Amino acid sequence: MKIQLALDRFTIPEAVHITNIVQDSIDWVEIGTSLIKEFGISSIEQLKNEFPEKVMVADVKTIDNAKYEFEMCFKAGADVATVMGVSPLVTIETCMNLASKMNKQVMIDLLNTTEEQKRELLQYREAVFCFHVSKDEQELANQAQNGHLFNGDLSEFLTMKTAFAGGLTHESIRSLSGFNPSVAIIGSAITKAKDPAQAAFCFKQLIMDGKVEKQDE
Amino acid sequence: MKIQLALDRFTIPEAVHITNIVQDSIDWVEIGTSLIKEFGISSIEQLKNEFPEKVMVADVKTIDNAKYEFEMCFKAGADVATVMGVSPLVTIETCMNLASKMNKQVMIDLLNTTEEQKRELLQYREAVFCFHVSKDEQELANQAQNGHLFNGDLSEFLTMKTAFAGGLTHESIRSLSGFNPSVAIIGSAITKAKDPAQAAFCFKQLIMDGKVEKQDE
Repeated sequence: MKIQLALDRFTIPEAVHITNIVQDSIDWVEIGTSLIKEFGISSIEQLKNEFPEKVMVADVKTIDNAKYEFEMCFKAGADVATVMGVSPLVTIETCMNLASKMNKQVMIDLLNTTEEQKRELLQYREAVFCFHVSKDEQELANQAQNGHLFNGDLSEFLTMKTAFAGGLTHESIRSLSGFNPSVAIIGSAITKAKDPAQAAFCFKQLIMDGKVEKQDE
Repeated sequence: MKIQLALDRFTIPEAVHITNIVQDSIDWVEIGTSLIKEFGISSIEQLKNEFPEKVMVADVKTIDNAKYEFEMCFKAGADVATVMGVSPLVTIETCMNLASKMNKQVMIDLLNTTEEQKRELLQYREAVFCFHVSKDEQELANQAQNGHLFNGDLSEFLTMKTAFAGGLTHESIRSLSGFNPSVAIIGSAITKAKDPAQAAFCFKQLIMDGKVEKQDE
């Protein structure tokens, strides 16, 4: 299982600084939606420049204009880009085709998708499916502090590459072990920790020790 | 009825240039999602700087992190910002509350919303509801050239402020007259016209001549 460091609500120098500190314990670097919307596509270029060996995830949350946005992200250095599962299917199809052509990956964000949408999305077998409790939902329910669980029937996704995002902590990450995820997306539990390097190392240890089931991809 | 000029897939200087040419015939200026994602929030600041008298619409397509994104847009000079109707309700609620506090407006983008979601959204009576055929859907169906119509039951929205977006042309805009819209969102029919000033003037004339029903707001 990979650890994806989610960088949100930072300036670019802050994002570079925190990534530097924790880079030994994390695998993927997510340029958060807030960075892209605040600083534009150069946020991807700058992070990729600083960490050329890391897998860069552009959390661009595309919901239309798929070819333009995905090309922009991939050309800027992203290895993975996100599209919303609630988009019209043509948008997701466009992302999948472009990524395949450019030898890149698509992460489909399942935020607020219906069960029917989830079933339709299963056709995109090359995608990483991201189960996502949003920031706004977390703040509403204060779920982040309570070690939330992801709801809904996940069984159909057991053979797919999956990612989990939404206030994951050292405690709640253990609840993922049954799902055999490919990626755990972790933000504030690392970036807002008193000692981010130690917090990231602790997540890595939990995975290495088999406290969370591993999956090679 | 207002005309909202949608600026997408441009550099900032190009966006300023085209707005300059057509400004006498249009009312609202939309900083398109592609401008925000490519150039960041400074795209809003620069356009507002150049056209301080125009109503600025930040098409930020928020789907999470509502307070952060909306504050960012409003502080940068946006008068209106967009949130996706497919978002969790808490996200839309947060946008509405913030806009009310800052004396700004929310446009709810109804792209790909279910009938049930549309009904739930009707509680936000202060919002502008945007019926939206996405770029990707247009390209799929080539509807832009065929003068598409907006599907679904719009009757419940007749007493609300509405906007229509998606390949509107001098022909298809006439089909909106029954809906009494507040805003017609027009992109390439102006920006890609041989003579953008003339194209914009023609839209204004159609509205002034009552070919499209007017509504004061």
